[in-house]
Amino acid sequence: MNLYLTQTLQRAVQLNPDATATLFRGRSRSYGELGQRVARLAGALHRLGMKRGDRVGMLALNTDRTLEYYMAVWWAGGVVNPVNTRWSANEMVHSLDDCGTAILFVDDQFLPLVDTLRTCSKALRTCIYMGEGRAPAGMADWETLLQDSEPVPDALRQGEDLAGVFYTGGTTGRPKGVMLSHSALALNSQISLLSAYFDERERLLQVAPLFHLAGLSFLLRGVVMGCTQVIVPGFTVDAVLEAIERDRITHLMAIPAMLQVLVDDPRTAAADLSSVRFVGYGASPITVPLLERAFAMFPQAEFVQGYGMTELSAGVSYLTSRYHTPEGRQLGKLASAGQALAGVDIRIGDGEGRELPRGEVGEIMVRSPCVMQGYWNLSEQTAAALRDGWMHTGDAGRMDAQGFVFIVDRFKDMIVSGGENVYCAEVEGALAGHPEVAAVAVIGVPSASWGESVHAVVVRRPGATADAEALMAHCRTLIAGYKCPRSIEFIEALPISGAGKVMKYKLREPHWAGQERRVG
Amino acid sequence: MNLYLTQTLQRAVQLNPDATATLFRGRSRSYGELGQRVARLAGALHRLGMKRGDRVGMLALNTDRTLEYYMAVWWAGGVVNPVNTRWSANEMVHSLDDCGTAILFVDDQFLPLVDTLRTCSKALRTCIYMGEGRAPAGMADWETLLQDSEPVPDALRQGEDLAGVFYTGGTTGRPKGVMLSHSALALNSQISLLSAYFDERERLLQVAPLFHLAGLSFLLRGVVMGCTQVIVPGFTVDAVLEAIERDRITHLMAIPAMLQVLVDDPRTAAADLSSVRFVGYGASPITVPLLERAFAMFPQAEFVQGYGMTELSAGVSYLTSRYHTPEGRQLGKLASAGQALAGVDIRIGDGEGRELPRGEVGEIMVRSPCVMQGYWNLSEQTAAALRDGWMHTGDAGRMDAQGFVFIVDRFKDMIVSGGENVYCAEVEGALAGHPEVAAVAVIGVPSASWGESVHAVVVRRPGATADAEALMAHCRTLIAGYKCPRSIEFIEALPISGAGKVMKYKLREPHWAGQERRVG
Repeated sequence: MNLYLTQTLQRAVQLNPDATATLFRGRSRSYGELGQRVARLAGALHRLGMKRGDRVGMLALNTDRTLEYYMAVWWAGGVVNPVNTRWSANEMVHSLDDCGTAILFVDDQFLPLVDTLRTCSKALRTCIYMGEGRAPAGMADWETLLQDSEPVPDALRQGEDLAGVFYTGGTTGRPKGVMLSHSALALNSQISLLSAYFDERERLLQVAPLFHLAGLSFLLRGVVMGCTQVIVPGFTVDAVLEAIERDRITHLMAIPAMLQVLVDDPRTAAADLSSVRFVGYGASPITVPLLERAFAMFPQAEFVQGYGMTELSAGVSYLTSRYHTPEGRQLGKLASAGQALAGVDIRIGDGEGRELPRGEVGEIMVRSPCVMQGYWNLSEQTAAALRDGWMHTGDAGRMDAQGFVFIVDRFKDMIVSGGENVYCAEVEGALAGHPEVAAVAVIGVPSASWGESVHAVVVRRPGATADAEALMAHCRTLIAGYKCPRSIEFIEALPISGAGKVMKYKLREPHWAGQERRVG
Repeated sequence: MNLYLTQTLQRAVQLNPDATATLFRGRSRSYGELGQRVARLAGALHRLGMKRGDRVGMLALNTDRTLEYYMAVWWAGGVVNPVNTRWSANEMVHSLDDCGTAILFVDDQFLPLVDTLRTCSKALRTCIYMGEGRAPAGMADWETLLQDSEPVPDALRQGEDLAGVFYTGGTTGRPKGVMLSHSALALNSQISLLSAYFDERERLLQVAPLFHLAGLSFLLRGVVMGCTQVIVPGFTVDAVLEAIERDRITHLMAIPAMLQVLVDDPRTAAADLSSVRFVGYGASPITVPLLERAFAMFPQAEFVQGYGMTELSAGVSYLTSRYHTPEGRQLGKLASAGQALAGVDIRIGDGEGRELPRGEVGEIMVRSPCVMQGYWNLSEQTAAALRDGWMHTGDAGRMDAQGFVFIVDRFKDMIVSGGENVYCAEVEGALAGHPEVAAVAVIGVPSASWGESVHAVVVRRPGATADAEALMAHCRTLIAGYKCPRSIEFIEALPISGAGKVMKYKLREPHWAGQERRVG
């Protein structure tokens, strides 16, 4: 037997069946109940025709049912395929069809999309309502499904069996499905806990989106340790402060954009945040001034930074708490993304697979038991990313004498805005489709709220009159809102290198001048 | 890429090359040096004709070179086969030949055995001297080998590749070779650390025999975390107290017999043991009075008990420190072997593979990614022990509502004496070979020094005159000293059940009456 994800639940049930597993809007369930509900929901999936290895989707804000969804799909022998809630309907249809997902769980928020998805998707067959009200006509209902189904035994998929397909932004304009195995996801929980340990007495706040691997990884670690998971639908200052005060949250995982909003909000200073003993952050750049304000906001908390990516089952290096303390900061590692987790090989490569001497900047390469199996149905992109067992991250970095990784820039032409990856090529493609646009380059510029925001530099055709507003509206018809440019600048000509490429660093320079920038 | 054991070394070198890896008799080596020495020693193994997958043996007391041996064999692509130093030459020859081990490292202590091993073993081809003096004629020398060899790249054996064959006592009179993979051993380190965490600032005392999996597991965890390993050749009160005081040992792993000797020795009370913050114990029964004396000996230390076996890559359940504190002892778990480690399934079975209700006594069954691949060349015994993915431990136990495992007795007819397994059938076979013995039953009886000691109940043939002394002498010619009976009792007839089996519990009763017994 190898590692398997439902084992984490089974063990939590064995060790403490009466402990609170989930808290959502006052609804509390123990691990014992969770285990029983998962076995029944898995039975329901079988009744709905789900076969071993079938993909099952979810389109919902965070709820306690999110954990039931994940565990039940695995228990039933299926493969999870959570949908990015920020996508346009077009993007959702693409990923469902690409992945051949026939069953989709949908909550109240996304009910209005169901007709469109059903009409446009060739793969989608069954939608299950996972919201809190009464199921709309033609849809099964979560609690009725559970009541009407018999529990089934764990299908015991394990090891290299595919556990999930997680879509991530694509450089060619289409999201790519990252295939992660049971072993990869389960092991990532364990090695992450070795660098940032917590135990079953903790209460974790699940506020980052749980369709995203950063959120899911934190959720799974909570199951491994049998913690109480306090789940809120999404990030608002009210939701976070309320949960911390009411449920005495001990552990928080946040992207820098959330920390920024929190420190900027006057209500934060008035709230009792003294229960918080751990703040994990990552997934986008953070500035040292923001970090310092976060230290002041949670003076009694340990801070841990993670660096990773979906292709690596989330984190591969951690900057542990000891480098965040006033004393530890003297060690000068605060600007780094930390050291490799146990079991993870990190190297700085020269682009040809050779390791560079310490201190030199090159591409960050990662080899680990948690690396993806590949991109779903994209063998060429898989071969380009995974060479000789090494994941070529596309990020530029250097490593110091103690193995601390300093991320210098992203080789991949990608913006991380509010924790989401935005691939410039996709935004450029949308803008370039406008009849009055002659040339375009999209870059990330610093944003107090989002880490980076999407900025477009546009060369208009002679005689064009379209303004920034018109181009933004054009983009919104084609791509998700978070990918659309927040600002547009018009220039006469793009700076082109001898090799014919746009020299984006020249476009970035004026925006980033004087900024202390960290890419986490 | 999957987990691989040399990765633990490579990461320790990357994260802190200058940290002290090993301390042995005043000789200190950094992780950077260790990495280089291992790559050279692996080169030497290649020069000596070792091929991928070849077994390489070691017959030595603990030294810093023990760690170099393990890592170099793995680095070179080989399989370790450490020899139990307490065996008779006969038993050693059997295991070397059974395993086809052609290369053997031998230290000063065991040099006198080399001629016999060479003469009697068909497999053994090359002996390498790993002692501290000058190599005897006809043997290669450790440091010369290193100097004369070029470092080679890591062979990168991984995952399910065989990492070691570890011989454990056999019920049929012959030790069985337990086959453990890279993944099993590496993962066992990680999950053990999740229940008893320590970090790279710790200094571990390696006093338990490193050929044994309990010792090796503690050693490997130290490499995973990049700790300083303080190694002593073997257990003496002097060696332990000296190391603790001189090297400020923080972490200690001991079998109960060692703790017993330590608490009984007057020098212990005079020693400064204040640096010790962690005491791990297990591998044999411990009494609560001994445990309480150990708490008093190390008042500032956390105590953790492990339960496991070679077939499971060492520990599968831990009783963590919090149940050892004065407050935690109120929870009533101190008599248990703790809860399953992360990733480990433990069940109490009815002997037919069905799980029993909580509280009922049955056979402890374990399923985990750390279970052995099987017994070397013993497919029948493997099939008997591993059924449907579950290791049938042969231990009797029950599980409470929180998953705590209480070990009641060992189904396998085995005595654990001083951390070593003694299978009764083997001792009975030796005694039965004496011409004056009519019938014999061997049991474990309580021993202050050894947890249990080997006790024989003998029915003599009519007119026989052989006394206990004579029978013990007879045994010593056939089996290892630690397997020989420490006491012999003569009776008229053995109590036989209706099924024709010796009712050993009736023989045990008078010895164990009034004893609070824990089997760890």
